[in-house]
Amino acid sequence: MSGIEPSKIQESLQEVLQQVIELLRKHHLVEGLVHKQEMPRHELVETLVHRQNLVELRKKLDDLHPADVAYILEALPLEQRLLVWDLVKAERDGDILLEVSDAVRESLIATMDSEELIAATENLDTDEIADLAPDLPQDVLHELMVAMDTQNRSRLQSAMSYEEDTVGALMDFDIVTIRDDISLEVVLRYLRRLGELPGHTDKLFVVDRDDKFRGVLPLKRLLVHDPEASVAAVMAEEAVTFRPEDDAGEAASAFERYDLVTAPVVAANNRLVGRLTVDEVMDFIREESDSEMLSLAGLREEEDLFATVWKSIQNRWTWLAVNLVTAFIASRVIGMFEGSIEKIVALAALMPIVAGIGGNSGNQTTTMIVRALALGQIHGSGLRKLFLKEAKVSLVNGLIWGSVIGLIAYFLYRNAALGVVMTGAMILNLLLAALMGVLIPMFMHKLGRDPAVGSSVMITAVTDSGGFFIFLGLATLFLL
Amino acid sequence: MSGIEPSKIQESLQEVLQQVIELLRKHHLVEGLVHKQEMPRHELVETLVHRQNLVELRKKLDDLHPADVAYILEALPLEQRLLVWDLVKAERDGDILLEVSDAVRESLIATMDSEELIAATENLDTDEIADLAPDLPQDVLHELMVAMDTQNRSRLQSAMSYEEDTVGALMDFDIVTIRDDISLEVVLRYLRRLGELPGHTDKLFVVDRDDKFRGVLPLKRLLVHDPEASVAAVMAEEAVTFRPEDDAGEAASAFERYDLVTAPVVAANNRLVGRLTVDEVMDFIREESDSEMLSLAGLREEEDLFATVWKSIQNRWTWLAVNLVTAFIASRVIGMFEGSIEKIVALAALMPIVAGIGGNSGNQTTTMIVRALALGQIHGSGLRKLFLKEAKVSLVNGLIWGSVIGLIAYFLYRNAALGVVMTGAMILNLLLAALMGVLIPMFMHKLGRDPAVGSSVMITAVTDSGGFFIFLGLATLFLL
Repeated sequence: MSGIEPSKIQESLQEVLQQVIELLRKHHLVEGLVHKQEMPRHELVETLVHRQNLVELRKKLDDLHPADVAYILEALPLEQRLLVWDLVKAERDGDILLEVSDAVRESLIATMDSEELIAATENLDTDEIADLAPDLPQDVLHELMVAMDTQNRSRLQSAMSYEEDTVGALMDFDIVTIRDDISLEVVLRYLRRLGELPGHTDKLFVVDRDDKFRGVLPLKRLLVHDPEASVAAVMAEEAVTFRPEDDAGEAASAFERYDLVTAPVVAANNRLVGRLTVDEVMDFIREESDSEMLSLAGLREEEDLFATVWKSIQNRWTWLAVNLVTAFIASRVIGMFEGSIEKIVALAALMPIVAGIGGNSGNQTTTMIVRALALGQIHGSGLRKLFLKEAKVSLVNGLIWGSVIGLIAYFLYRNAALGVVMTGAMILNLLLAALMGVLIPMFMHKLGRDPAVGSSVMITAVTDSGGFFIFLGLATLFLL
Repeated sequence: MSGIEPSKIQESLQEVLQQVIELLRKHHLVEGLVHKQEMPRHELVETLVHRQNLVELRKKLDDLHPADVAYILEALPLEQRLLVWDLVKAERDGDILLEVSDAVRESLIATMDSEELIAATENLDTDEIADLAPDLPQDVLHELMVAMDTQNRSRLQSAMSYEEDTVGALMDFDIVTIRDDISLEVVLRYLRRLGELPGHTDKLFVVDRDDKFRGVLPLKRLLVHDPEASVAAVMAEEAVTFRPEDDAGEAASAFERYDLVTAPVVAANNRLVGRLTVDEVMDFIREESDSEMLSLAGLREEEDLFATVWKSIQNRWTWLAVNLVTAFIASRVIGMFEGSIEKIVALAALMPIVAGIGGNSGNQTTTMIVRALALGQIHGSGLRKLFLKEAKVSLVNGLIWGSVIGLIAYFLYRNAALGVVMTGAMILNLLLAALMGVLIPMFMHKLGRDPAVGSSVMITAVTDSGGFFIFLGLATLFLL
């Protein structure tokens, strides 16, 4: 690792230290929420601040869980982040790289040479290396594969071959398999001989002589049944299983639905190829909801909080460009009616209200539909019912809010006809919003695209241009 | 249960049946993703469709997991939903009520009398009754409590006393405790005598003679260690524990961070009071992200897809009212400049572009900050750095997009000064968006409010009114 100017180390160290301590204090990583230590907080801070040395900070970092180090790295500006990264013991680098966000991982890997990367990753599990693989240089990946045994190499290759967001990309290979023709007593002895079980093991996987998947033996059952009983008699045959090519989102739903901790992943030929664990599923759910939030605001990907200005601009420009185009179209719609606005300038002041409320109402409808689509709740005759409901809601809202704003327009400009046009435009634009709020996400869904991405931009574009057109059009027809 | 007209049963039954089958087929609840059955799909459909009878549908429902029945209920319009609900075996009602969404639960409970509700809930666990309690009529709740033993009654009372979104509200009481002075052999015998372990049990909780929490014994360790060893020697003392009053969101972060399956909940006096399980945590995470999506679009709560028009309007009106107020303010800002617009009508066509792009850019900044606040990544000197970065991004974007749109304005209206004003207004409004995009969520966070709720409305209000004011103000100063 490199990239830190030695002269600055001492200076920024204190800052890092304080921030690390501040972070620790604030977020209860050590004390507070997670009640692990009894050392008085005051003493902790005093000691660290006064010693002010690398050794102490390094020790502090060594005591932290890799996820906590990752958290600190993410919260620090680049320079300080790299300083902390330098202090982390090399053998922990791999575990920490697995925990940080993609953007931060990139910034860390950029400072490491091939040798360091190999040292950091060679002791990771195959599925973990597969997770890091997209960010690793080719030569590092090659060297890692050369050093592997045949089984692990073929596992890595298959893990890397699965598309993102499939079960295959999330699964790991930490499976403990047993045969179905042995007794529980033998299983218990086998486990003791193993000496350690993989994390999250809540069940053992039962295979037959040909390595075909037969069922699962939950530890719960293993523990409460007579040791003389056979695995075949105690195991559950009706296990929920996945295939590597299954959609990760659907697998996550199944985990939530059936309260799973682990589940076997079985290939087409009924061969057990791996397992899916609840921690990976939970991370997946979190990432999905994060990326949905980001894409709603037009952020293409997770942005490192301390990314460079240039990176941020790249991340955000598409959305701004798209919105510029839709705003330009709306502007041209207004341009069509410049003659009317010249005559009744109040139109210019009132038109954004019609467009704005339409956009809000349309986004409410779209959000409902996107959610229902995600939950798979829309089907057949339901669609017509849904649209009718949304249309009725819009009609009532249009009557209520349209009347309110129509009255206000009347009192402001002492023009009854203007008030009526305003009310009529509100009702029509809300109906347009309801129609498009249902149709746009449904249409995107039909096209096989994620309706959560882009529906909001499209509905706003339609209600803006549509709202201006309806309001200015009605005004031109009835007021001039 | 009541509320279904008998004459309609036969008619809608077929529809329900088809929909249920359609749902099952489409969403792989039985086949497909979850590979449980081998029966050919075609045969399944044929048989059911041709028999067309309640018995068959009832049987179909009986074979489904409660979560799957809940899913079907949620996907059906009210009438058909109640029909299916009638067919579900009474003893499964409780489990299903626990699985459906709040809005659907309300619709189901509304059709049940006290007797049915008591029958449905009396066999549930205490923590499950606590989950349903807010929706149960007082007399049902009273009767349930009378029927409980003292321990369960006091548990129910304490579970109901914890605020929503605390660990206490999510925890259950399915704890298996052991003493630390016994051997693993004794533990194994004890478990066999228990005959069954609660779901998700991955560790046993170790207490001393005074019932004080001492540590945890993971089943993994129990299984691989010598049965002669004592619990005290094998258990983990450094367990992650929670207090009932801890924030559920922070607990969820800890579950994600430390990959937990269950964790003990310990009261202030070090007494073990319950446990938190990963399935509850996962549900919590999903609900949080759902409600965030909903609140972004101004939906106050989860809305039953087939809610009545009236309920939908109630759910949505606050947001529309707030937006009407902000739109009205923006309209008055434009009103201030009606004189200018009368002279240069092009201003009316161009002004929504300035406002719109400002809103988009501001929302991008706000989303970044809200996310960083949620992750606890903003602290001390980071804030200034962040604001500087956002300001620089806005400045560059303002220069780029402002120039583009300035040029377009020039070519459209053959007015160079108008183009320059347009560019200047874009830059200033994007800077305003960056400033407010950082400050608004930070300010809400300082006030102890959730910045995810309302930040978007406020930033849009500021960039709309601000954008109109800046653009029309500059135009008035330099073009008239």
